[in-house]
Amino acid sequence: MIIEMRTGAAKKEVDDVVQKAKSLDLGVQLNVGTDKTVVAILGSNTGQIATDIFAILPGVENVTRIMKPYKLASRAFRHKDTIVDCGGIKIGGEKIIVMAGPCAVESEKQLMQAAEAVKKAGASILRGGAFKPRTSPFSFQGLQKEGLELLAKARKEFGMPIVTEVVNPQDVSLVSSYADILQIGSRNMQNFALLTEAGKSQHPVVLKRGFSCTITEWLTAADYLLAEGNHQVILCERGIRTFEDSVRFSLDISAIPVLKKNSHLPVNVDPSHAAGNYTLVPAIAKAAVAAGADGLLIEVHPNPKEALVDGFQSLSTSDFTRLMNELRVIAKAVGRSI
Amino acid sequence: MIIEMRTGAAKKEVDDVVQKAKSLDLGVQLNVGTDKTVVAILGSNTGQIATDIFAILPGVENVTRIMKPYKLASRAFRHKDTIVDCGGIKIGGEKIIVMAGPCAVESEKQLMQAAEAVKKAGASILRGGAFKPRTSPFSFQGLQKEGLELLAKARKEFGMPIVTEVVNPQDVSLVSSYADILQIGSRNMQNFALLTEAGKSQHPVVLKRGFSCTITEWLTAADYLLAEGNHQVILCERGIRTFEDSVRFSLDISAIPVLKKNSHLPVNVDPSHAAGNYTLVPAIAKAAVAAGADGLLIEVHPNPKEALVDGFQSLSTSDFTRLMNELRVIAKAVGRSI
Amino acid sequence: MIIEMRTGAAKKEVDDVVQKAKSLDLGVQLNVGTDKTVVAILGSNTGQIATDIFAILPGVENVTRIMKPYKLASRAFRHKDTIVDCGGIKIGGEKIIVMAGPCAVESEKQLMQAAEAVKKAGASILRGGAFKPRTSPFSFQGLQKEGLELLAKARKEFGMPIVTEVVNPQDVSLVSSYADILQIGSRNMQNFALLTEAGKSQHPVVLKRGFSCTITEWLTAADYLLAEGNHQVILCERGIRTFEDSVRFSLDISAIPVLKKNSHLPVNVDPSHAAGNYTLVPAIAKAAVAAGADGLLIEVHPNPKEALVDGFQSLSTSDFTRLMNELRVIAKAVGRSI
Amino acid sequence: MIIEMRTGAAKKEVDDVVQKAKSLDLGVQLNVGTDKTVVAILGSNTGQIATDIFAILPGVENVTRIMKPYKLASRAFRHKDTIVDCGGIKIGGEKIIVMAGPCAVESEKQLMQAAEAVKKAGASILRGGAFKPRTSPFSFQGLQKEGLELLAKARKEFGMPIVTEVVNPQDVSLVSSYADILQIGSRNMQNFALLTEAGKSQHPVVLKRGFSCTITEWLTAADYLLAEGNHQVILCERGIRTFEDSVRFSLDISAIPVLKKNSHLPVNVDPSHAAGNYTLVPAIAKAAVAAGADGLLIEVHPNPKEALVDGFQSLSTSDFTRLMNELRVIAKAVGRSI
Repeated sequence: MIIEMRTGAAKKEVDDVVQKAKSLDLGVQLNVGTDKTVVAILGSNTGQIATDIFAILPGVENVTRIMKPYKLASRAFRHKDTIVDCGGIKIGGEKIIVMAGPCAVESEKQLMQAAEAVKKAGASILRGGAFKPRTSPFSFQGLQKEGLELLAKARKEFGMPIVTEVVNPQDVSLVSSYADILQIGSRNMQNFALLTEAGKSQHPVVLKRGFSCTITEWLTAADYLLAEGNHQVILCERGIRTFEDSVRFSLDISAIPVLKKNSHLPVNVDPSHAAGNYTLVPAIAKAAVAAGADGLLIEVHPNPKEALVDGFQSLSTSDFTRLMNELRVIAKAVGRSI
Repeated sequence: MIIEMRTGAAKKEVDDVVQKAKSLDLGVQLNVGTDKTVVAILGSNTGQIATDIFAILPGVENVTRIMKPYKLASRAFRHKDTIVDCGGIKIGGEKIIVMAGPCAVESEKQLMQAAEAVKKAGASILRGGAFKPRTSPFSFQGLQKEGLELLAKARKEFGMPIVTEVVNPQDVSLVSSYADILQIGSRNMQNFALLTEAGKSQHPVVLKRGFSCTITEWLTAADYLLAEGNHQVILCERGIRTFEDSVRFSLDISAIPVLKKNSHLPVNVDPSHAAGNYTLVPAIAKAAVAAGADGLLIEVHPNPKEALVDGFQSLSTSDFTRLMNELRVIAKAVGRSI
Repeated sequence: MIIEMRTGAAKKEVDDVVQKAKSLDLGVQLNVGTDKTVVAILGSNTGQIATDIFAILPGVENVTRIMKPYKLASRAFRHKDTIVDCGGIKIGGEKIIVMAGPCAVESEKQLMQAAEAVKKAGASILRGGAFKPRTSPFSFQGLQKEGLELLAKARKEFGMPIVTEVVNPQDVSLVSSYADILQIGSRNMQNFALLTEAGKSQHPVVLKRGFSCTITEWLTAADYLLAEGNHQVILCERGIRTFEDSVRFSLDISAIPVLKKNSHLPVNVDPSHAAGNYTLVPAIAKAAVAAGADGLLIEVHPNPKEALVDGFQSLSTSDFTRLMNELRVIAKAVGRSI
Repeated sequence: MIIEMRTGAAKKEVDDVVQKAKSLDLGVQLNVGTDKTVVAILGSNTGQIATDIFAILPGVENVTRIMKPYKLASRAFRHKDTIVDCGGIKIGGEKIIVMAGPCAVESEKQLMQAAEAVKKAGASILRGGAFKPRTSPFSFQGLQKEGLELLAKARKEFGMPIVTEVVNPQDVSLVSSYADILQIGSRNMQNFALLTEAGKSQHPVVLKRGFSCTITEWLTAADYLLAEGNHQVILCERGIRTFEDSVRFSLDISAIPVLKKNSHLPVNVDPSHAAGNYTLVPAIAKAAVAAGADGLLIEVHPNPKEALVDGFQSLSTSDFTRLMNELRVIAKAVGRSI
């Protein structure tokens, strides 16, 4: 942590900063510049200490954190890539894993048709929402327990693990009893009570990025899962809120190399929620694979025109099959398979 | 809802759009322009119908929603201003209500000193966090139940209602048994499970704006509370995430007149979390009162240098007393009292 | 400048950083922490040195600038408030100065009616655009030279100085020969060729904030004017681009106290371009005065329904008169006049 | 254009809207809904008519534009892809064109080394800045005319066309006399005086996206060039300003398919200015090619450690060579060459 004193700060003010740091067992080094004094606070835990503690002291101009606030999710904490193992399917390895299926589970027929088609096209994991976080209380909220049962049925029939969202800490054990992978949605990335419960479940978790959260905040949220001893964490970039209005969210493509550099966790990309428009999904999916994503989360519906939720961003099964064929060539071009 | 067809869309495509609308019992009017056909979908519930249903149809270029997605929170639904009554203290009336106190309850001594000082300076309601949503699992998470007990003690001693945050649906009944007003924090504005529980409690609720949510999304989230029959809802603007880096969040001052126009709910402003810096709090608080806010939520600590959370944005008790005196003059200038 | 080395950086890498700094005549202090080495670069000109010079060196993790990149516009460079004197009208002093008039000069009749009304209501300076920067080449581009002549006529008739925009470096001398104050628009805040010419003119300049520029970038742009020896610079906050879509731009109210702290230049606020909606202008204008603005720039049109440009954000003359009366009371409440 | 009237708007108010439209020779269709009346304004030029004209009228709640404000740059105006021909090099065709070279021309030796290396690695066009728009007046402003001469020399020696930035309308003819392609930088995207001059030059122009401009604003700015009869326009995405702070700008990958859908102009991507960090450039460049970009603009420096400008985002010549080899495989995977 670097504490910049105001020009002309009194010696007593500098001493108080030094004293505060020493009271917290932190190391201190003084840099007396020509214009101002800068105090460097040293110690391996300074990433977890609030900058406010120093910012509030008289004579302090500015406090800059050097250590990152996240710890367990950092590449510094674990150098080797984490590979999440979901019943033999390895996420974060050479093979790019595609999770596909409908936004919401709507009926047995819809889910089975989707599952069959995505399996045939090469997806490894079936996605489908049973509990849906909707912006309006008057919108369809998902089939809930019935949806979980349909997902379990589809898993049995097609032999694919299932990933589904959990939105309430109380539901974690219920959802875990059906799902292979729990999904934490974008609006819940900083729902810390939910993260703690999901961490305790010891199930693999897909942690979607909050649509207005920085990568640093995202990795710090991942620490909530990891701190419960759950190391099966998959990050999923799904678009961020920007001023651009031609898409629902702007996919942050540079998040992929930034995460690969700073964290050991596998990185998925969800092009469907980012674009909010099925015509844009293929280009974004291809870009994600080229940029180094370890997996994709893609919405597919057997009949997008009849979808109850997010139909406009869903690929039809034939569009999905075509996309998978295109992605295979790009995966190969970057030395991977799909 | 306005559906713009592509230039050269086939008659069959236009017919399909019309058919879809009729199947949902919606009215339809066709506008055949020189370049393109535009279909207007009429009906009082079009604000709750997903635009995707039409966007996905062949030949459709663009779908624009005319009706707002929120309903119960809208000025159209209820013309008269809602006044929340909290044990005789009226929020949304002529008097501007100040809620003040420490970010987190840290100890009996700290809370009692803060309560005494803010009461003396003219605050009406005591704030203090017992459950703290922290970005890192390694940070202080609040005194929890012990904090609630201290708040109840302060209420008894100083005769002030208390407002405190709830972060987990399971805790709503516990927190309600202590607090006069529940607070839903910024990161939980779209935690719909929590909103539903808070709505059921029938306690007054301060609903903070999600730091990256639009005003439309905010009012739609308020519908979750109102839909449970809880009409005691207070909105609180607390700054939005922008590219500007001199403050923690940019206070959206125009949210005040926009909310007053579109909603009947009272509007509070939290200058402390927006600025993240005590030196900026007075200017923002004064601006909020001048712009028409019904209340303020201000962090005050008897000794900001020793605060465990957010010390840099907390006013000292003497700074708070000075600010209250300045605010009184401005409130009078806009025809109100404080 | 603070240079954080990677964990485990080699001694040679640290030495190279030190060597680079010394070759630029900068002071250096080493902080050897438990986890990593941090190098502090000292010297009064480090705000102007590119961080890239160090970021590129092997073993460097991160470079943080401590000194601000702006110099002449900073409060550190000049402690006393700058007061711009425009023919006896002082901007930045006790009196809040209102600049008002139409967005674009459209005709003699329109301009004279506007000028008469704003003068009567208490505005000190007449605004009006002759050269209009329009987003589309097919929109009205302003009356140009004819507009300047009408502005000069209005000045003579009503005895008010005039402020008008200049958009092309080549036009600076022409516009200066008519206008008392030059205005640099938001889209030109980083048009450095234009800033340099405007600086050379030695005319007072209103420098509007780029709608997506940070306060630091804004003050660094002001340095272009000040570096030409032109000290008559007025900053004007006019709203920034955010995700909120109920307004054209979100007025950054906290920019006022931040600028007052970091710069000596007077601060104006333009509520009209921020809101893009005349019904929101009064609340924002009142907030700006309460927060400490030194002046306002308000669009007023004798007949907004017939305006060629931005009619929806223009106040009618009667609305403007009412607002001025309200602002007077608020100005008094913060110890100023209007 | 769709005009939504307020609930309960008077018949006279609706009539006034209709009258206003008819006075502008626009077609009108009324939609009298259950809750509110909606007026559709028809005509092929409504994209160029200001919404304000109607928004200001009494009884109007909201005005939505259906036609886009840009015209000449739209896919509707010209269905076929534009292919820019620069001395036989075709931008927008099957082959992906790479423009590479140093950010700023610094010396003959630096430029020639860069030119030789990028040519050898497969770049088609040499980039290099002679006039540099710098945020601070105290930074290196480029070699200017001397830089242009060095670029011309490099062209002669290596047989590559050159692209260089122009920042002042007055310099367009000078720069055109040296350069094969003019570049308009991000901060000048809405410098309309400069666009007009560049349009008149009839030289091919690379129009970089303003870092906070929407795609609609960008294409409308392109109309300034096209309106002068200059059809040789290349769009260049170079990152937008967001809240994410791990990169200088967030590359908007979805801009590529959005532009391809809405415009006929070729699309380039500049990964160097987006990332601001050479380690992130390869991943972004690969993503751009996979997403359908027609060209890349990449900064390469023979010795990034000694670069005067933006060294941290420049690739070394060996890194660039390696990247070109990787890009070739991806280009092939999407059916193109490089």
